[in-house]
Amino acid sequence: MSAFQELMAYQRDTEALAQVGGRLGWDQETVMPRGAAQQRGTEMGVIEAVLHARRCDPRVGEWLERAEAPDAAGQAQLREIAREHERSLKVPADLARRLAQVTSQAQGKWAEARANEDFSAFRPILEEVVSLKRQEGAALAQEGDPYDALLDGYEPATNAAQIAAMFDAMRPRLVALRAAILERPMPQGLTRQFDEAGQMELSRELAGAFGYDWTRGRLDMAVHPFCSGSGDDVRITTRIDSADPFNCLYSTIHEVGHATYEQAINPDYALTPLGRGASMGVHESQSRIYENQLGRSRAFCGWLFDRMRTSFGDLSVADADAFYAAVNRVHNGYIRTEADEVQYNLHIMLRFDLERALISGDLAVGDLEAAWNDRFKQDFGYAVDCPSNGCLQDVHWSVGLFGYFPTYTLGNLYAGCLNEALRRDLPDLDDQLGKGDLGGATGWLRDKVQRHGGLYLPAEVIGRASGMPVTEEPLLTYLEAKFGALYRL
Amino acid sequence: MSAFQELMAYQRDTEALAQVGGRLGWDQETVMPRGAAQQRGTEMGVIEAVLHARRCDPRVGEWLERAEAPDAAGQAQLREIAREHERSLKVPADLARRLAQVTSQAQGKWAEARANEDFSAFRPILEEVVSLKRQEGAALAQEGDPYDALLDGYEPATNAAQIAAMFDAMRPRLVALRAAILERPMPQGLTRQFDEAGQMELSRELAGAFGYDWTRGRLDMAVHPFCSGSGDDVRITTRIDSADPFNCLYSTIHEVGHATYEQAINPDYALTPLGRGASMGVHESQSRIYENQLGRSRAFCGWLFDRMRTSFGDLSVADADAFYAAVNRVHNGYIRTEADEVQYNLHIMLRFDLERALISGDLAVGDLEAAWNDRFKQDFGYAVDCPSNGCLQDVHWSVGLFGYFPTYTLGNLYAGCLNEALRRDLPDLDDQLGKGDLGGATGWLRDKVQRHGGLYLPAEVIGRASGMPVTEEPLLTYLEAKFGALYRL
Repeated sequence: MSAFQELMAYQRDTEALAQVGGRLGWDQETVMPRGAAQQRGTEMGVIEAVLHARRCDPRVGEWLERAEAPDAAGQAQLREIAREHERSLKVPADLARRLAQVTSQAQGKWAEARANEDFSAFRPILEEVVSLKRQEGAALAQEGDPYDALLDGYEPATNAAQIAAMFDAMRPRLVALRAAILERPMPQGLTRQFDEAGQMELSRELAGAFGYDWTRGRLDMAVHPFCSGSGDDVRITTRIDSADPFNCLYSTIHEVGHATYEQAINPDYALTPLGRGASMGVHESQSRIYENQLGRSRAFCGWLFDRMRTSFGDLSVADADAFYAAVNRVHNGYIRTEADEVQYNLHIMLRFDLERALISGDLAVGDLEAAWNDRFKQDFGYAVDCPSNGCLQDVHWSVGLFGYFPTYTLGNLYAGCLNEALRRDLPDLDDQLGKGDLGGATGWLRDKVQRHGGLYLPAEVIGRASGMPVTEEPLLTYLEAKFGALYRL
Repeated sequence: MSAFQELMAYQRDTEALAQVGGRLGWDQETVMPRGAAQQRGTEMGVIEAVLHARRCDPRVGEWLERAEAPDAAGQAQLREIAREHERSLKVPADLARRLAQVTSQAQGKWAEARANEDFSAFRPILEEVVSLKRQEGAALAQEGDPYDALLDGYEPATNAAQIAAMFDAMRPRLVALRAAILERPMPQGLTRQFDEAGQMELSRELAGAFGYDWTRGRLDMAVHPFCSGSGDDVRITTRIDSADPFNCLYSTIHEVGHATYEQAINPDYALTPLGRGASMGVHESQSRIYENQLGRSRAFCGWLFDRMRTSFGDLSVADADAFYAAVNRVHNGYIRTEADEVQYNLHIMLRFDLERALISGDLAVGDLEAAWNDRFKQDFGYAVDCPSNGCLQDVHWSVGLFGYFPTYTLGNLYAGCLNEALRRDLPDLDDQLGKGDLGGATGWLRDKVQRHGGLYLPAEVIGRASGMPVTEEPLLTYLEAKFGALYRL
């Protein structure tokens, strides 16, 4: 075997073990008995220790020096393996293991504190997580900025300054759009109850319509919907609110966007570094365009209105236009995942600033709740009423995802570019969506983005797919047009 | 740290990884998407490769040479670690990995072949499994007998000759008992349907009554009921037959016997070699005594009769005596797991002889179906009607469990000894069982057997608990008395 082949065989085992770790994470959030939390923390720590040791193995460095890639995909494999090898070498083994162990347990503490509306119960373990992440950031950054180093783990080839500049460019137009909308009459929402079985049945149908391969996945319930796994075992979760069926349906469509991305990747890349999405931002671009530009479009809402009436009878809104307005209602609210397209990115900006301050040390965990509440009041104009609507609403920080939030807005921005190109390439898209036919859109995305997996860097894959440089302009133009029409601005 | 402490810290990680492998097995049999079978095989192979390398690590040998155990439990730890180290060193790494990979996939092939009644679809991969197990047996046995070496993996300190002698001693009395019973009128079984929800609700209640700790476990459905995991995450499965509620209820009680054993082990042994049952035979003694000597006793059946009438209304049998007779009906049938206490061990003897012949090479996989059917006719007097009632009924061989079946009869035999001692120590046991109170019995078993985990060798733990040498006599005496009375022999 050549050095390249030896390296790839070794890497295949590492990737398989990483899949096992991911499967344990799925188990923890869906089916694990409550009393198993501590033992699971130990198990997660050991799996991470094995993975870390494999990624740091000196043989990887030797193979990388000698390996000759047979083609462009091989070069990308070497790029990703080297990146992971170098990042892993910077993080001490004990720290990597401790992080896996603590974040596994912190997740349970977060869920409990959130259920009990008690930030103080979560505070001690969050302090430990933040302390460990600061150490990890410092180890990764060496002379650079720790937050940038953490961000780089989710979105290569960007940094906090670029993100901040992007946010600065977006904020005034989003704030102005929001203000204009909130002066207009609020459309009516749905005012009845929707049974769980009916919501789940429709969720399953929508998942299939958006291209989810059920033979290689499954749908379960979770506190915080997520997608887990790569290759032939990509699982999604959703949640149900009997008064708000859109919570369940659009969570499902969102996670199907993530899942079909993983399922569509070139099978030659299975159990290699290219066998997963290009970055969290690109991943989010798929879930966002499925959920919003496609799923919340006027054309698709027309089809969904009829489909929901078949399942549930009268929907308490007059017609498809009123239904479309209800789906896209811009409303006051506390929860990021339930936010409309206009306000969503303001939620991300809040988290971005707070998490940077936590990692830099400018904000102590003990002051987080007050800082969140102050900032929320300032940005949204009303006060947080309880911790589960405030700084306890998201799972991310408990599991150590610092530097992750901005990838949501990057995903929105990528989705804006892709949507413009998709509509240019498929002039009859709305006709298809109006029939509940997602085949054209998901086929385009599969071909342009998804099948490539990690072959290209984020801006490259979005740039190649959309045929334009990546900027916030298409997203803002789309939002202003859509909501301008909806609210007669 | 002393050599002993270093070794134990190392071993703790190995045990945690073994738990992860077990969790993947649970996942595969309960929730895994069908299309993930091949990828899962790869994952199982890699986990096994990591475990095998850890168990063979030269440091383990060095620590074992230098380690001084602080107490008797420490000595038992060293005994078990050395045993596993020596066994692992004999099995080539490639073989260990290949076995994990192939058996993971073979399980899916078995389930498919069983559903389609097609042994020929299962034959090729079973040939591969048998070939690999013969290699493993030969590697482990060195100069000795390969089947003995495989058996030793499930039940230390016994061999096939001892098992065969035990079977020879049991068979004439079981055959005579069966023949006498089959000449008597057959009691009536239940003749109505039982809804799934009611069966599951009662299963959950029974699990709790038999001591299952729900905070550290869960109950799911599986084709073949099983128990999985140790310590704080011990999961059970069951299955439902709407015409036969005893299938679900007694499968659940059986698996609860396994599960409470794991849950009751001294927590100081968590994630060590002593933190699991002493052997498969001792494990089976717990599931068997829960299911049969306790669960199918006249006293408990009296309580269960009332309880089931509360849930389901009229049961189609006249009274508690008729219910007890229905629960313990000795009837013709093909399926081992549904067999009554009298005939169960005859099923095991059939499998023991066939699997020894497969491992020795005297029987080819291609001839297995015919050999099974011939032997079944000879032992039971009627012909197998379809493969799912014949050689495709059990999952065991697909997952490489050769040498495992005899531990079921060993378990019955151990349960016979324990039952005699339990009834000696708790004279009012039947009063308790008649009230549905399992606390006295399960408390005795917890104290005498379960809490010790792997501290003692099988015959030692059963001998200490029952205060008698381990023989088949108590089991046979119990069966002859119970069924003699039931059938007025």
